[in-house]
Amino acid sequence: MALKTLSAKAAAALDKDLMSTGAFSIDQLMELAGLSVSQVVYRVHPLNKGRRILVAVGPGNNGGDGLVAARHLRHYGYQPSIYYPKRSKKELYQRLAKQLEDLDVPFVDDFPTALQSADHVVDAIFGFSFSGEVREPFPPVIQAMAESKIPVTSVDAPSSWDIEEGPPKSGVGSNFHPDVLVSLTAPKPLVKHFKGRHFIGGRFVTPGITQKYDFDVPAYEGIDQIVEVGPEGLKL
Amino acid sequence: MALKTLSAKAAAALDKDLMSTGAFSIDQLMELAGLSVSQVVYRVHPLNKGRRILVAVGPGNNGGDGLVAARHLRHYGYQPSIYYPKRSKKELYQRLAKQLEDLDVPFVDDFPTALQSADHVVDAIFGFSFSGEVREPFPPVIQAMAESKIPVTSVDAPSSWDIEEGPPKSGVGSNFHPDVLVSLTAPKPLVKHFKGRHFIGGRFVTPGITQKYDFDVPAYEGIDQIVEVGPEGLKL
Repeated sequence: MALKTLSAKAAAALDKDLMSTGAFSIDQLMELAGLSVSQVVYRVHPLNKGRRILVAVGPGNNGGDGLVAARHLRHYGYQPSIYYPKRSKKELYQRLAKQLEDLDVPFVDDFPTALQSADHVVDAIFGFSFSGEVREPFPPVIQAMAESKIPVTSVDAPSSWDIEEGPPKSGVGSNFHPDVLVSLTAPKPLVKHFKGRHFIGGRFVTPGITQKYDFDVPAYEGIDQIVEVGPEGLKL
Repeated sequence: MALKTLSAKAAAALDKDLMSTGAFSIDQLMELAGLSVSQVVYRVHPLNKGRRILVAVGPGNNGGDGLVAARHLRHYGYQPSIYYPKRSKKELYQRLAKQLEDLDVPFVDDFPTALQSADHVVDAIFGFSFSGEVREPFPPVIQAMAESKIPVTSVDAPSSWDIEEGPPKSGVGSNFHPDVLVSLTAPKPLVKHFKGRHFIGGRFVTPGITQKYDFDVPAYEGIDQIVEVGPEGLKL
Protein backbone atom coordinates (compact mmCIF):
# COMPACT_ATOMS: atom_id res chain seq x y z
CA MET A 1 0.00 0.00 0.00
CA ALA A 2 1.48 3.33 -1.04
CA LEU A 3 1.38 6.07 1.58
CA LYS A 4 -0.61 9.10 0.59
CA THR A 5 1.42 12.13 -0.32
CA LEU A 6 1.03 15.82 0.42
CA SER A 7 1.46 18.37 -2.35
CA ALA A 8 3.72 21.36 -1.74
CA LYS A 9 0.63 23.51 -1.37
CA ALA A 10 -0.98 21.13 1.12
CA ALA A 11 2.26 20.83 3.10
CA ALA A 12 2.45 24.62 3.40
CA ALA A 13 -1.19 24.81 4.51
CA LEU A 14 -0.62 22.00 7.03
CA ASP A 15 2.37 23.84 8.53
CA LYS A 16 0.28 26.97 8.81
CA ASP A 17 -2.49 25.02 10.53
CA LEU A 18 -0.04 23.50 13.01
CA MET A 19 1.13 26.95 14.01
CA SER A 20 -2.30 28.60 14.15
CA THR A 21 -5.17 26.35 15.22
CA GLY A 22 -2.69 23.63 16.21
CA ALA A 23 -1.03 26.06 18.65
CA PHE A 24 2.53 24.84 18.02
CA SER A 25 5.39 27.31 17.94
CA ILE A 26 7.97 27.05 15.20
CA ASP A 27 10.61 26.45 17.89
CA GLN A 28 8.70 23.36 19.01
CA LEU A 29 8.07 22.00 15.53
CA MET A 30 11.62 22.58 14.39
CA GLU A 31 12.97 20.90 17.52
CA LEU A 32 10.85 17.81 16.86
CA ALA A 33 11.60 17.79 13.13
CA GLY A 34 15.34 18.09 13.73
CA LEU A 35 15.17 15.42 16.41
CA SER A 36 13.52 13.11 13.85
CA VAL A 37 16.30 13.76 11.34
CA SER A 38 18.95 13.02 13.98
CA GLN A 39 17.26 9.72 14.80
CA VAL A 40 17.28 8.73 11.13
CA VAL A 41 21.00 9.45 10.84
CA TYR A 42 21.65 7.40 13.98
CA ARG A 43 19.60 4.55 12.47
CA VAL A 44 21.17 4.51 8.99
CA HIS A 45 24.67 5.58 10.00
CA PRO A 46 25.44 4.42 13.57
CA LEU A 47 28.44 5.88 15.37
CA ASN A 48 30.72 2.97 14.42
CA LYS A 49 30.31 3.80 10.71
CA GLY A 50 32.11 7.11 11.23
CA ARG A 51 31.29 10.16 13.26
CA ARG A 52 31.96 12.97 10.80
CA ILE A 53 28.57 14.29 9.66
CA LEU A 54 28.57 17.23 7.26
CA VAL A 55 25.29 19.15 7.39
CA ALA A 56 24.43 21.36 4.40
CA VAL A 57 22.06 24.03 5.69
CA GLY A 58 19.83 26.15 3.49
CA PRO A 59 18.40 29.59 4.26
CA GLY A 60 14.90 28.54 5.41
CA ASN A 61 13.02 26.09 7.61
CA ASN A 62 14.65 23.04 6.05
CA GLY A 63 17.98 24.48 7.12
CA GLY A 64 16.65 25.07 10.62
CA ASP A 65 15.75 21.38 10.85
CA GLY A 66 19.34 20.63 9.86
CA LEU A 67 20.75 22.90 12.56
CA VAL A 68 18.62 21.19 15.22
CA ALA A 69 19.59 17.74 13.92
CA ALA A 70 23.28 18.66 14.09
CA ARG A 71 22.93 19.62 17.76
CA HIS A 72 21.31 16.31 18.66
CA LEU A 73 23.91 14.42 16.63
CA ARG A 74 26.65 16.20 18.57
CA HIS A 75 25.04 15.07 21.83
CA TYR A 76 24.84 11.48 20.53
CA GLY A 77 28.62 11.54 20.06
CA TYR A 78 28.98 12.46 16.38
CA GLN A 79 31.30 15.18 15.13
CA PRO A 80 29.05 17.31 12.94
CA SER A 81 30.25 20.23 10.87
CA ILE A 82 27.99 22.81 9.28
CA TYR A 83 27.99 24.40 5.84
CA TYR A 84 25.65 27.38 6.20
CA PRO A 85 26.49 29.97 3.54
CA LYS A 86 23.22 31.95 3.54
CA ARG A 87 22.49 32.67 7.17
CA SER A 88 18.99 33.72 8.05
CA LYS A 89 18.67 36.94 10.01
CA LYS A 90 15.69 35.57 11.91
CA GLU A 91 16.30 35.31 15.63
CA LEU A 92 15.37 31.60 15.78
CA TYR A 93 18.08 30.66 13.27
CA GLN A 94 20.67 32.79 15.00
CA ARG A 95 19.84 31.04 18.25
CA LEU A 96 20.09 27.58 16.66
CA ALA A 97 23.51 28.49 15.25
CA LYS A 98 24.66 29.83 18.64
CA GLN A 99 23.61 26.55 20.28
CA LEU A 100 25.96 24.74 17.91
CA GLU A 101 28.81 27.18 18.48
CA ASP A 102 28.47 26.53 22.22
CA LEU A 103 29.07 22.84 21.49
CA ASP A 104 32.18 23.72 19.47
CA VAL A 105 30.58 22.50 16.26
CA PRO A 106 32.63 23.96 13.38
CA PHE A 107 31.11 25.97 10.54
CA VAL A 108 32.90 25.38 7.23
CA ASP A 109 33.07 27.59 4.15
CA ASP A 110 34.19 25.16 1.46
CA PHE A 111 31.66 22.38 0.97
CA PRO A 112 33.52 20.22 -1.60
CA THR A 113 36.64 20.17 0.58
CA ALA A 114 34.66 19.42 3.74
CA LEU A 115 32.92 16.60 1.88
CA GLN A 116 36.22 14.82 1.37
CA SER A 117 36.56 14.21 5.09
CA ALA A 118 32.91 13.44 5.85
CA ASP A 119 31.43 10.02 6.63
CA HIS A 120 27.82 11.04 5.97
CA VAL A 121 26.04 14.13 4.68
CA VAL A 122 22.74 15.66 5.74
CA ASP A 123 21.10 17.64 2.94
CA ALA A 124 19.00 20.30 4.68
CA ILE A 125 19.20 22.87 1.92
CA PHE A 126 15.68 23.02 0.46
CA GLY A 127 12.36 21.59 1.61
CA PHE A 128 8.79 21.50 0.35
CA SER A 129 8.71 25.21 -0.40
CA PHE A 130 11.43 24.92 -3.06
CA SER A 131 10.57 25.55 -6.68
CA GLY A 132 12.32 26.80 -9.76
CA GLU A 133 16.09 27.13 -10.11
CA VAL A 134 18.79 26.34 -7.58
CA ARG A 135 20.54 29.62 -6.78
CA GLU A 136 24.15 30.31 -5.87
CA PRO A 137 26.02 29.16 -3.93
CA PHE A 138 24.13 25.86 -3.91
CA PRO A 139 24.54 24.43 -7.47
CA PRO A 140 28.11 23.17 -6.88
CA VAL A 141 27.06 21.86 -3.45
CA ILE A 142 24.30 19.74 -4.94
CA GLN A 143 26.64 18.71 -7.73
CA ALA A 144 29.25 17.61 -5.19
CA MET A 145 26.68 15.55 -3.26
CA ALA A 146 25.45 13.98 -6.52
CA GLU A 147 28.95 12.94 -7.58
CA SER A 148 30.26 11.86 -4.19
CA LYS A 149 30.12 8.31 -2.85
CA ILE A 150 29.52 9.62 0.67
CA PRO A 151 25.97 8.65 1.67
CA VAL A 152 23.45 11.47 1.85
CA THR A 153 20.32 11.83 3.98
CA SER A 154 17.91 14.44 2.59
CA VAL A 155 15.45 16.31 4.79
CA ASP A 156 11.90 16.32 3.37
CA ALA A 157 13.11 16.54 -0.24
CA PRO A 158 16.32 15.91 -2.17
CA SER A 159 17.43 19.51 -2.67
CA SER A 160 16.85 20.70 -6.27
CA TRP A 161 14.04 18.17 -6.86
CA ASP A 162 10.64 19.49 -7.81
CA ILE A 163 8.24 18.65 -4.97
CA GLU A 164 5.68 17.20 -7.37
CA GLU A 165 7.79 16.02 -10.31
CA GLY A 166 11.00 14.78 -8.69
CA PRO A 167 14.49 15.22 -10.13
CA PRO A 168 15.04 17.91 -12.76
CA LYS A 169 15.25 16.58 -16.32
CA SER A 170 18.60 18.26 -16.85
CA GLY A 171 21.14 20.45 -15.09
CA VAL A 172 21.78 20.78 -11.37
CA GLY A 173 20.26 17.92 -9.42
CA SER A 174 19.31 15.78 -12.41
CA ASN A 175 21.81 13.17 -11.22
CA PHE A 176 21.26 13.68 -7.49
CA HIS A 177 19.89 10.53 -5.84
CA PRO A 178 20.33 10.63 -2.07
CA ASP A 179 20.52 7.37 -0.15
CA VAL A 180 18.03 8.27 2.55
CA LEU A 181 15.00 10.55 2.74
CA VAL A 182 13.19 11.78 5.85
CA SER A 183 9.70 12.96 4.96
CA LEU A 184 8.43 15.30 7.65
CA THR A 185 4.79 14.66 8.70
CA ALA A 186 3.97 13.01 5.33
CA PRO A 187 5.71 12.14 2.03
CA LYS A 188 5.60 14.60 -0.84
CA PRO A 189 4.77 13.45 -4.40
CA LEU A 190 8.47 13.35 -5.35
CA VAL A 191 8.86 10.11 -3.35
CA LYS A 192 7.67 8.13 -6.34
CA HIS A 193 11.04 8.95 -7.93
CA PHE A 194 13.04 8.09 -4.82
CA LYS A 195 14.71 4.68 -4.57
CA GLY A 196 16.56 4.78 -1.24
CA ARG A 197 15.62 4.21 2.39
CA HIS A 198 12.58 6.29 3.28
CA PHE A 199 11.51 7.40 6.74
CA ILE A 200 8.65 9.47 8.07
CA GLY A 201 9.39 11.80 10.98
CA GLY A 202 7.58 14.40 13.04
CA ARG A 203 5.50 12.55 15.60
CA PHE A 204 3.18 15.39 16.52
CA VAL A 205 0.38 15.21 13.97
CA THR A 206 -3.16 15.18 15.36
CA PRO A 207 -6.19 13.25 14.07
CA GLY A 208 -7.76 16.56 13.03
CA ILE A 209 -4.81 17.28 10.75
CA THR A 210 -4.67 13.81 9.22
CA GLN A 211 -8.38 13.92 8.49
CA LYS A 212 -8.26 17.39 6.98
CA TYR A 213 -5.31 16.49 4.72
CA ASP A 214 -6.38 12.89 4.16
CA PHE A 215 -3.33 10.90 5.17
CA ASP A 216 -2.49 8.36 7.83
CA VAL A 217 -0.02 8.63 10.68
CA PRO A 218 2.35 5.70 10.20
CA ALA A 219 2.78 3.07 12.91
CA TYR A 220 5.62 4.52 14.99
CA GLU A 221 7.15 2.08 17.46
CA GLY A 222 7.85 2.70 21.14
CA ILE A 223 9.25 6.16 21.71
CA ASP A 224 10.67 6.48 18.18
CA GLN A 225 10.19 9.82 16.47
CA ILE A 226 10.69 8.12 13.10
CA VAL A 227 9.40 5.13 11.17
CA GLU A 228 10.88 3.50 8.10
CA VAL A 229 8.38 3.03 5.30
CA GLY A 230 10.57 1.90 2.43
CA PRO A 231 11.09 3.34 -1.02
CA GLU A 232 8.16 4.98 -2.77
CA GLY A 233 6.28 5.15 0.50
CA LEU A 234 5.56 1.43 0.52
CA LYS A 235 5.08 0.15 4.04
CA LEU A 236 7.66 -2.42 5.01
CA MET B 1 30.45 8.02 42.96
CA ALA B 2 27.68 10.41 43.88
CA LEU B 3 26.59 12.82 41.16
CA LYS B 4 27.05 16.46 42.01
CA THR B 5 23.88 18.33 42.80
CA LEU B 6 22.62 21.78 41.89
CA SER B 7 21.10 24.01 44.56
CA ALA B 8 17.76 25.68 43.83
CA LYS B 9 19.62 28.95 43.34
CA ALA B 10 22.13 27.39 40.93
CA ALA B 11 19.36 25.62 39.01
CA ALA B 12 17.54 28.93 38.55
CA ALA B 13 20.74 30.63 37.38
CA LEU B 14 21.47 27.76 34.98
CA ASP B 15 17.99 28.04 33.46
CA LYS B 16 18.52 31.76 33.02
CA ASP B 17 21.88 31.12 31.34
CA LEU B 18 20.36 28.57 28.96
CA MET B 19 17.80 31.13 27.83
CA SER B 20 20.18 34.09 27.57
CA THR B 21 23.75 33.28 26.57
CA GLY B 22 22.70 29.70 25.74
CA ALA B 23 20.19 31.04 23.19
CA PHE B 24 17.52 28.44 23.93
CA SER B 25 13.86 29.40 23.92
CA ILE B 26 11.62 28.17 26.69
CA ASP B 27 9.56 26.35 24.06
CA GLN B 28 12.61 24.35 23.05
CA LEU B 29 13.75 23.56 26.59
CA MET B 30 10.29 22.59 27.74
CA GLU B 31 9.84 20.34 24.71
CA LEU B 32 13.08 18.52 25.48
CA ALA B 33 12.38 18.35 29.22
CA GLY B 34 8.89 16.96 28.65
CA LEU B 35 10.24 14.51 26.09
CA SER B 36 12.70 13.26 28.73
CA VAL B 37 9.89 12.76 31.22
CA SER B 38 7.86 10.83 28.66
CA GLN B 39 10.83 8.54 27.97
CA VAL B 40 11.22 7.81 31.68
CA VAL B 41 7.55 6.86 31.98
CA TYR B 42 7.89 4.58 28.95
CA ARG B 43 10.96 2.97 30.57
CA VAL B 44 9.52 2.43 34.06
CA HIS B 45 5.93 1.83 33.03
CA PRO B 46 5.77 0.28 29.54
CA LEU B 47 2.45 0.19 27.71
CA ASN B 48 1.67 -3.36 28.81
CA LYS B 49 1.64 -2.28 32.48
CA GLY B 50 -1.43 -0.11 31.84
CA ARG B 51 -2.01 2.89 29.65
CA ARG B 52 -3.86 5.24 31.97
CA ILE B 53 -1.39 7.94 33.02
CA LEU B 54 -2.70 10.71 35.29
CA VAL B 55 -0.58 13.85 35.04
CA ALA B 56 -0.80 16.35 37.91
CA VAL B 57 0.17 19.72 36.49
CA GLY B 58 1.23 22.72 38.57
CA PRO B 59 1.02 26.39 37.61
CA GLY B 60 4.63 26.93 36.48
CA ASN B 61 7.42 25.45 34.38
CA ASN B 62 7.28 22.06 36.10
CA GLY B 63 3.65 21.86 35.01
CA GLY B 64 4.63 22.80 31.46
CA ASP B 65 7.06 19.87 31.38
CA GLY B 66 4.14 17.67 32.44
CA LEU B 67 1.91 18.97 29.65
CA VAL B 68 4.59 18.24 27.05
CA ALA B 69 5.23 14.78 28.52
CA ALA B 70 1.52 13.99 28.34
CA ARG B 71 1.44 14.84 24.64
CA HIS B 72 4.34 12.53 23.86
CA LEU B 73 2.81 9.79 26.01
CA ARG B 74 -0.39 10.11 24.01
CA HIS B 75 1.57 9.65 20.78
CA TYR B 76 3.29 6.57 22.27
CA GLY B 77 -0.12 4.98 22.76
CA TYR B 78 -0.89 5.83 26.40
CA GLN B 79 -4.19 7.30 27.56
CA PRO B 80 -3.12 10.30 29.61
CA SER B 81 -5.47 12.50 31.57
CA ILE B 82 -4.58 15.87 33.01
CA TYR B 83 -5.31 17.46 36.37
CA TYR B 84 -4.52 21.15 35.87
CA PRO B 85 -6.43 23.23 38.40
CA LYS B 86 -4.35 26.45 38.27
CA ARG B 87 -3.98 27.25 34.61
CA SER B 88 -1.26 29.67 33.65
CA LYS B 89 -2.36 32.62 31.56
CA LYS B 90 0.92 32.60 29.67
CA GLU B 91 0.53 31.91 25.98
CA LEU B 92 2.97 28.99 25.99
CA TYR B 93 0.93 27.08 28.56
CA GLN B 94 -2.30 27.79 26.77
CA ARG B 95 -0.77 26.41 23.60
CA LEU B 96 0.51 23.28 25.34
CA ALA B 97 -2.98 22.67 26.74
CA LYS B 98 -4.56 23.20 23.31
CA GLN B 99 -2.17 20.64 21.80
CA LEU B 100 -3.52 18.10 24.28
CA GLU B 101 -7.13 19.03 23.63
CA ASP B 102 -6.51 18.42 19.93
CA LEU B 103 -5.45 14.88 20.83
CA ASP B 104 -8.67 14.40 22.85
CA VAL B 105 -6.71 14.15 26.10
CA PRO B 106 -9.22 14.70 28.92
CA PHE B 107 -8.76 17.31 31.65
CA VAL B 108 -10.15 16.12 35.00
CA ASP B 109 -11.30 18.19 37.98
CA ASP B 110 -11.27 15.65 40.78
CA PHE B 111 -7.79 14.28 41.37
CA PRO B 112 -8.55 11.65 44.04
CA THR B 113 -11.31 10.16 41.92
CA ALA B 114 -9.16 10.18 38.78
CA LEU B 115 -6.38 8.50 40.74
CA GLN B 116 -8.60 5.49 41.36
CA SER B 117 -8.60 4.62 37.69
CA ALA B 118 -4.96 5.46 36.91
CA ASP B 119 -2.13 3.00 36.28
CA HIS B 120 0.66 5.54 36.83
CA VAL B 121 0.90 9.14 37.99
CA VAL B 122 3.22 11.90 36.82
CA ASP B 123 3.80 14.53 39.50
CA ALA B 124 4.54 17.76 37.62
CA ILE B 125 3.21 20.10 40.29
CA PHE B 126 6.30 21.84 41.68
CA GLY B 127 9.93 21.94 40.57
CA PHE B 128 13.16 23.48 41.78
CA SER B 129 11.61 26.89 42.38
CA PHE B 130 9.27 25.55 45.06
CA SER B 131 9.72 26.67 48.65
CA GLY B 132 7.55 27.19 51.70
CA GLU B 133 4.04 25.84 52.03
CA VAL B 134 1.96 23.83 49.58
CA ARG B 135 -1.04 25.98 48.68
CA GLU B 136 -4.57 24.98 47.77
CA PRO B 137 -5.74 23.04 45.89
CA PHE B 138 -2.60 20.90 46.00
CA PRO B 139 -2.38 19.60 49.62
CA PRO B 140 -5.03 16.90 49.13
CA VAL B 141 -3.48 16.02 45.76
CA ILE B 142 -0.08 15.38 47.32
CA GLN B 143 -1.76 13.56 50.20
CA ALA B 144 -3.60 11.32 47.72
CA MET B 145 -0.37 10.50 45.85
CA ALA B 146 1.39 9.78 49.16
CA GLU B 147 -1.31 7.39 50.31
CA SER B 148 -1.99 5.67 46.98
CA LYS B 149 -0.32 2.49 45.82
CA ILE B 150 -0.31 3.76 42.22
CA PRO B 151 3.32 4.38 41.23
CA VAL B 152 4.36 8.02 40.90
CA THR B 153 7.05 9.61 38.73
CA SER B 154 8.05 13.07 39.96
CA VAL B 155 9.48 15.72 37.66
CA ASP B 156 12.65 17.34 39.03
CA ALA B 157 11.43 17.17 42.64
CA PRO B 158 8.80 15.29 44.63
CA SER B 159 6.22 18.06 44.98
CA SER B 160 6.18 19.56 48.51
CA TRP B 161 9.81 18.54 49.20
CA ASP B 162 12.29 21.25 50.04
CA ILE B 163 14.83 21.41 47.23
CA GLU B 164 17.76 21.33 49.66
CA GLU B 165 16.36 19.48 52.67
CA GLY B 166 14.01 16.91 51.13
CA PRO B 167 10.66 15.83 52.60
CA PRO B 168 8.96 18.11 55.10
CA LYS B 169 9.33 17.01 58.72
CA SER B 170 5.57 17.09 59.21
CA GLY B 171 2.35 17.87 57.40
CA VAL B 172 1.66 17.71 53.68
CA GLY B 173 4.29 15.71 51.82
CA SER B 174 6.07 14.33 54.90
CA ASN B 175 4.97 10.84 53.87
CA PHE B 176 5.27 11.38 50.09
CA HIS B 177 7.89 9.09 48.59
CA PRO B 178 7.48 8.78 44.81
CA ASP B 179 8.78 5.69 43.06
CA VAL B 180 10.64 7.48 40.29
CA LEU B 181 12.37 10.84 39.96
CA VAL B 182 13.48 12.59 36.78
CA SER B 183 16.11 15.21 37.58
CA LEU B 184 16.27 17.74 34.77
CA THR B 185 19.83 18.73 33.72
CA ALA B 186 21.26 17.75 37.14
CA PRO B 187 20.02 16.35 40.49
CA LYS B 188 19.02 18.73 43.24
CA PRO B 189 20.24 18.23 46.84
CA LEU B 190 16.95 16.57 47.83
CA VAL B 191 18.03 13.41 45.99
CA LYS B 192 19.94 12.25 49.06
CA HIS B 193 16.53 11.61 50.64
CA PHE B 194 15.13 9.83 47.60
CA LYS B 195 15.12 6.03 47.52
CA GLY B 196 13.45 5.16 44.21
CA ARG B 197 14.58 4.89 40.60
CA HIS B 198 16.41 8.03 39.59
CA PHE B 199 16.92 9.34 36.07
CA ILE B 200 18.61 12.39 34.63
CA GLY B 201 16.95 14.03 31.62
CA GLY B 202 17.47 17.07 29.43
CA ARG B 203 20.18 16.20 26.94
CA PHE B 204 21.04 19.72 25.87
CA VAL B 205 23.62 20.90 28.39
CA THR B 206 26.82 22.36 26.95
CA PRO B 207 30.37 22.00 28.30
CA GLY B 208 30.34 25.71 29.18
CA ILE B 209 27.35 25.17 31.45
CA THR B 210 28.71 22.06 33.14
CA GLN B 211 32.00 23.81 33.82
CA LYS B 212 30.35 26.93 35.19
CA TYR B 213 28.07 24.95 37.48
CA ASP B 214 30.60 22.21 38.21
CA PHE B 215 28.72 19.04 37.33
CA ASP B 216 29.12 16.27 34.79
CA VAL B 217 26.79 15.31 31.97
CA PRO B 218 25.93 11.67 32.60
CA ALA B 219 26.72 9.00 30.03
CA TYR B 220 23.57 8.96 27.91
CA GLU B 221 23.28 5.98 25.54
CA GLY B 222 22.42 6.07 21.85
CA ILE B 223 19.66 8.56 21.16
CA ASP B 224 18.20 8.37 24.68
CA GLN B 225 17.16 11.65 26.23
CA ILE B 226 17.41 10.06 29.69
CA VAL B 227 19.86 8.02 31.72
CA GLU B 228 19.21 6.05 34.88
CA VAL B 229 21.65 6.87 37.66
CA GLY B 230 20.15 4.99 40.60
CA PRO B 231 19.02 6.19 44.02
CA GLU B 232 20.92 9.02 45.67
CA GLY B 233 22.56 9.87 42.38
CA LEU B 234 24.86 6.85 42.46
CA LYS B 235 25.85 5.78 38.98
CA LEU B 236 24.67 2.29 38.15
